[in-house]
Amino acid sequence: MTVSVSGQGVESDEAPLLRVLAGERIDPPPVWLMRQAGRYLPEYRALRAKARNFLDFCYTPDMAIEATLQPIRRFGMDAAILFSDILVIADALGAGVSFEEGKGPVLEPVRGIGDLAKLSKSRIAEHCAPVYEAIGSLRSALPDRVALIGFAGGPWTVATYMVEGGSSKDFAQIKRWMWTDPDGFGRLIDLLSEATIEHLIGQVRAGAQCLQLFESWAGVLPEPEFDRWVMVPTRHIVESVRAACPKVPIIGFARAAGAMVDRYAQGTGVRGVGLDAMVPRTQALRLQETVAVQGNLDPVLLLAGGKALTDRARAIVAALADGPHVFNLGHGVLPPTPPEHVEALLAAVRGA
Amino acid sequence: MTVSVSGQGVESDEAPLLRVLAGERIDPPPVWLMRQAGRYLPEYRALRAKARNFLDFCYTPDMAIEATLQPIRRFGMDAAILFSDILVIADALGAGVSFEEGKGPVLEPVRGIGDLAKLSKSRIAEHCAPVYEAIGSLRSALPDRVALIGFAGGPWTVATYMVEGGSSKDFAQIKRWMWTDPDGFGRLIDLLSEATIEHLIGQVRAGAQCLQLFESWAGVLPEPEFDRWVMVPTRHIVESVRAACPKVPIIGFARAAGAMVDRYAQGTGVRGVGLDAMVPRTQALRLQETVAVQGNLDPVLLLAGGKALTDRARAIVAALADGPHVFNLGHGVLPPTPPEHVEALLAAVRGA
Repeated sequence: MTVSVSGQGVESDEAPLLRVLAGERIDPPPVWLMRQAGRYLPEYRALRAKARNFLDFCYTPDMAIEATLQPIRRFGMDAAILFSDILVIADALGAGVSFEEGKGPVLEPVRGIGDLAKLSKSRIAEHCAPVYEAIGSLRSALPDRVALIGFAGGPWTVATYMVEGGSSKDFAQIKRWMWTDPDGFGRLIDLLSEATIEHLIGQVRAGAQCLQLFESWAGVLPEPEFDRWVMVPTRHIVESVRAACPKVPIIGFARAAGAMVDRYAQGTGVRGVGLDAMVPRTQALRLQETVAVQGNLDPVLLLAGGKALTDRARAIVAALADGPHVFNLGHGVLPPTPPEHVEALLAAVRGA
Repeated sequence: MTVSVSGQGVESDEAPLLRVLAGERIDPPPVWLMRQAGRYLPEYRALRAKARNFLDFCYTPDMAIEATLQPIRRFGMDAAILFSDILVIADALGAGVSFEEGKGPVLEPVRGIGDLAKLSKSRIAEHCAPVYEAIGSLRSALPDRVALIGFAGGPWTVATYMVEGGSSKDFAQIKRWMWTDPDGFGRLIDLLSEATIEHLIGQVRAGAQCLQLFESWAGVLPEPEFDRWVMVPTRHIVESVRAACPKVPIIGFARAAGAMVDRYAQGTGVRGVGLDAMVPRTQALRLQETVAVQGNLDPVLLLAGGKALTDRARAIVAALADGPHVFNLGHGVLPPTPPEHVEALLAAVRGA
């Protein structure tokens, strides 16, 4: 790997991901993929079959560790992301989370302030202890150059599942609550923000070197609500985590937030932003003036494979080469993706 | 209604919608709503129950006319949009469209060039004759101040239904084709573009005074594909329709296209752009320098109703008052919306 270092930098043994998040430009860029551990890997499916259900799988350190390491062993990514789920926090709060095969998550809906009483953040440390245990073991197992990423869902995104009772198409329940009783709804967001801060700090103390905040449903909020329910909580989370763990960079991924990603990059304190596949080049370059950028390759192109995949991967690398860039997808690896396509992608990014 | 007219304009009897699309600023702005005719209206549900199926309903002029007029009678919008469906063109091409209750559209999938042979645009005029008949009667039935809007789906959007065989979540089939065989896929887009041009011109000749192109799934395409499969066909459609019908303005609605809406407004020749609910104020104001803007209110807020709805409606009117603006939603009226909320919205927009 050739390493070119920007202005004030020096060659270092620090993991490339962390160097890019500190503002360095590295050629070729470090690469990891959202959902790099998961159902597209046969070894994951074999492992997953041994667990009673998905949450048990997440809460069993040996399984979470093995799932996290599988793609690193097979492909040698530059970062490992703890195998877990953004709904672990909803579960820890008492939202009654379960995952039904082929149906996605199911939660006991929280539809108003009357439902908040059943939630409590007193159980997070105990509930998430297996997660922190997995992180500690992973940090010891990984070589120094492979950064270990912890993560959480953004409060808005986790709230969508809690209020809708699972996945949603039009987000009518949560938006109705948000608009008819913003103060009551704000209490849910506040609770989630504090829980998220505790969970992120817990992951850092256990060994996570970088954090990603997945605001996967940022893209369904109009501007005033984006400001109130994404920007404000994100800024609070970033500031609180930074106060406790000043060296750990946070990547924020406000998926599908379009033109609003600019204010998100400038106004929340994140050190990197995730780019979904629809962020155009001019916007990505503008974002790179403020933060590191990560992402942009359409996961369906990884599924399709072939020359279109490797050409596009090289084009993204070239387009973002003049600023801090972490290669990644615009969203998670799709389950039917052939593992060989991931191998071809990494080779293309690394110039093989 | 107070009418303030921009620089070179004069007060006129022309429909306010058409004046705004010609660049005028009108206070209060003309208002219509996407899906203003439809299931949220009890009189629509009563009418719809008389038809054997949804396509029959669209192809029966008396029913399409009545459905189109229902919201105008009840609420007095400033524009009527022909009651029809974007998949009428897919049906006319021979894609075997049917609508199953509660399941959405089902089509015989077109998955490669081998499937193109069964499609033909020779039947459009005959197939769509009832649509044009309805438009002719509607134009006579409507007062001059109520503009009559014709429409079509954008080729990319109609293609998604044809290739996926219906609605989709990740658009894997169409993207795979687009990436692995762009030339073959381009033949489907070309066919749809020519069919769309013929259908739009047919609607203008029958009496439509304005056209809207619904590119509802523009927001799933990365920039290079947005340029090739949305920008290029849209420019071709706009130029071809303008050559035949120079006075008829076209509104383009590239839904969820985020930062790419700017290039869409500047590079396609449309006179107005639809704004989904996520377009922020600064982007909307920038767009208004080039074209008229239409939309932006979240349909879930119309469903929720109350002070939040009327406050937001007034805020949108105020924010966009210095340029050409047509009040509308960011997407269609949702079926569970109470009709009284629509009444309250129009009163708020009109300053009552």
